[in-house]
Amino acid sequence: MNIFYASKLDVGSDEYKMDDSEWHHCHKVMRLGMNDAIHFFTGDGTLRYGKIVSANKNFGTVSMTEIIREEPYPTRKGIAIAPTKNMSRIEWMVEKGVEIGVTDFIFFQSQHSERTHLKQDRLQKILLSAVKQSLKLFLPSILVDLSFEEVLYLDGFDAKYIAHCKEDTVPILSVLEGQKPNLVLIGPEGDFSNEEINLARKNGLVSVSLGNTRLRTETAGLMAGHFMVIANEYNFNSNEQ
Amino acid sequence: MNIFYASKLDVGSDEYKMDDSEWHHCHKVMRLGMNDAIHFFTGDGTLRYGKIVSANKNFGTVSMTEIIREEPYPTRKGIAIAPTKNMSRIEWMVEKGVEIGVTDFIFFQSQHSERTHLKQDRLQKILLSAVKQSLKLFLPSILVDLSFEEVLYLDGFDAKYIAHCKEDTVPILSVLEGQKPNLVLIGPEGDFSNEEINLARKNGLVSVSLGNTRLRTETAGLMAGHFMVIANEYNFNSNEQ
Repeated sequence: MNIFYASKLDVGSDEYKMDDSEWHHCHKVMRLGMNDAIHFFTGDGTLRYGKIVSANKNFGTVSMTEIIREEPYPTRKGIAIAPTKNMSRIEWMVEKGVEIGVTDFIFFQSQHSERTHLKQDRLQKILLSAVKQSLKLFLPSILVDLSFEEVLYLDGFDAKYIAHCKEDTVPILSVLEGQKPNLVLIGPEGDFSNEEINLARKNGLVSVSLGNTRLRTETAGLMAGHFMVIANEYNFNSNEQ
Repeated sequence: MNIFYASKLDVGSDEYKMDDSEWHHCHKVMRLGMNDAIHFFTGDGTLRYGKIVSANKNFGTVSMTEIIREEPYPTRKGIAIAPTKNMSRIEWMVEKGVEIGVTDFIFFQSQHSERTHLKQDRLQKILLSAVKQSLKLFLPSILVDLSFEEVLYLDGFDAKYIAHCKEDTVPILSVLEGQKPNLVLIGPEGDFSNEEINLARKNGLVSVSLGNTRLRTETAGLMAGHFMVIANEYNFNSNEQ
């Protein structure tokens, strides 16, 4: 199945003009042209079927005939993480995170951060490729270069957790409320500073532990994602009043 | 902290001769020599402290003074998996699997396997490096090139599960007994054949689902590992008679 991403499709429209890298991939790489059938996802939960009705080097037009699959937006499961020095470690975390169902990737500066800047474009490509590969219909969101404070005040999450290896943490599954939009903060290799942990506590974040083992940053990020997925699918801590 | 692996240390001995790649790493790469302090782990649960008492190009002798840390062997958590075509995907699964606490990696041939042979040496190196990095004291075991039937009859696991995307599965956390040695079988990209699933069922394996999303083989392996770690740490299903 050839699936393409329609980033600019108007709701209700039944024609779509492809003139971006997806058209390049469709026409040049996959060698699809006039009358070929393709599938589109719009990143907002629908998978559509269409046929190419015009094709040239620079753009193609697709006539959309029907919606094949439609899904409600999943409960948000966000990872906010301090980027590692080695970019490939971040990239695989994004790829695997998409696969398991993480909906938000947020990269921020921590006091012990090893890297100060991330290229959003490159991560966005990896994201899109992982979304297609795993047949998801929603495009997770990526935010880069936030400050620690900006993460603390981020909207859209009912509960925020900070995972660290210092004292006074609770096991993450004992507190994660699976049916709510959750965000877990993951520190850099040198962990969060005491100052950051205190600031997080003052802002209502719960200090959690991801388990008994020492994890690399990117592994911690992925496992935090998996804990949120599990809490959601197995309906953890949802009856607490 | 400089940690080395003492593969041939006799129990009770207080001198150890290093003449393998660990000595190369110690002497040539880390430039350690006479009177330098080093740490050793033996892969069986002890971390020892020692001092180099003789050093030349080919080997060194270390005097072991004390055991610093000792751990009981963890509950076995095994992944039996059909190797992917792309070797690097297997390698990262082993690295991450060690980090989170998987104790046994078993690679076998499935009817839809994409790769028929794995080099144990290379995986062993990755394993050792991941063990050191994550400060573990046990060396997980690796078995390669097993047949599907050999996996079914493998000793040392109280319960075996087969994860697949076909019908009649139960969510894995609803059945994993966390305090028992568990083994989860993961199929290749094209999933297990019906024949394999039936054979597994006949041999008492429980068919499980890893969740609602489509995962790549290596991601499924890692997540199966995480489920076993969680079931163990959170003591899942342990009161069933």
